[in-house]
Amino acid sequence: MKFKIITLFPEMFDKVFGQSMLWKAQDRGLASFETIDLREFGLGPRKQVDDTPYGGGDGMLLKPEPIFAAVEKAKEELPNAKVVLMTPKGPIWDQKRASEFATSGDDFIIICPHYEGYDERILTLVDYQVSLGKFILTGGEIPTMAMVDSIVRLIPGVLGGETSAEIESFSDGDNFEYPQYTRPEDFRGMKVPEILLSGNHGEIAKWRAANAPTKPSEK
Amino acid sequence: MKFKIITLFPEMFDKVFGQSMLWKAQDRGLASFETIDLREFGLGPRKQVDDTPYGGGDGMLLKPEPIFAAVEKAKEELPNAKVVLMTPKGPIWDQKRASEFATSGDDFIIICPHYEGYDERILTLVDYQVSLGKFILTGGEIPTMAMVDSIVRLIPGVLGGETSAEIESFSDGDNFEYPQYTRPEDFRGMKVPEILLSGNHGEIAKWRAANAPTKPSEK
Repeated sequence: MKFKIITLFPEMFDKVFGQSMLWKAQDRGLASFETIDLREFGLGPRKQVDDTPYGGGDGMLLKPEPIFAAVEKAKEELPNAKVVLMTPKGPIWDQKRASEFATSGDDFIIICPHYEGYDERILTLVDYQVSLGKFILTGGEIPTMAMVDSIVRLIPGVLGGETSAEIESFSDGDNFEYPQYTRPEDFRGMKVPEILLSGNHGEIAKWRAANAPTKPSEK
Repeated sequence: MKFKIITLFPEMFDKVFGQSMLWKAQDRGLASFETIDLREFGLGPRKQVDDTPYGGGDGMLLKPEPIFAAVEKAKEELPNAKVVLMTPKGPIWDQKRASEFATSGDDFIIICPHYEGYDERILTLVDYQVSLGKFILTGGEIPTMAMVDSIVRLIPGVLGGETSAEIESFSDGDNFEYPQYTRPEDFRGMKVPEILLSGNHGEIAKWRAANAPTKPSEK
């Protein structure tokens, strides 16, 4: 599964894609990540990528020409890739969608807007819009990292055998993992629940089911 | 506003905090970001930070001792800082909470778990739990970037004057920005809506209100 990410801040991805699970996925040949510097497709000697909005308003918008050129360049290598736009106007990302993307067999070209927004005409390029949640971020870079991480860990072979269970536990969005404990048995007077030390697997399973939260924590 | 981030992958934050708005906030002395390498608080010659779960189960859990030691170290410098744990069990992050954190006057110590989870006893250290959404990630690092970005851009002086409007437009979670356009007026036959070129500010405002989406895009 190939990801090409169109961004004004390609450096932000270097260390993130070089660490941990994403590095492992790449090392095993199961996924690849590449950034495309939108600035290189800017217009004129100043490599302009943004301009003021028609009709007035604060801030600058990403112009259509550099984004079209960058997507077309990416499609030379990945003609069938789906194009994703990170935008607060998209449907909110969830585990169901991560799983759909992970099993789609598709490659992805991801557009990261920044600051005030983008010219609406770039939507003609886009197959999917993705919002990370009901909060505002400076750009599409961090949401892209989150989306890619959540997809790649579901590609078969990237993690161990525990993956399918995790998909399931999040599929209705209202199940949460039970409390877990490891050594030491007594840490500053705080003890691991007796039942977990008992070796009685039936009782442990019961305790875990009874103690798994059914809603998010209060604070 | 000071952020200290406890993580096994401190390098992931280098370029993210050194770019764009987060860099500007730091440069202006309005925010500071520091990572604390959890590995340094690991036990024994192998700097162990994780161990198997009591009662059985897949994967490894973060042990309590290194996390307690790292938080206590961070509190030496920031004794009144609030401690945040990134966890899928927390309430889902939104703009209202970003605004509360940004105006709280608090500093924050953020714990990034990784992989399978953490010993439940670390919750005794924690003031707030934060989940980024209904999806599973490999670790707390990327959610921390998102949370910090959404908070810092709301600190007065970090962005321009448009901030308060944005808080408002997201406060009920169901308002979305109107479509925007910039030059060129005609791009490959796709034209900017006439009304936006009219200079009639009343009509432009009406068009924008009528064309702002009221729900997320379908795809």
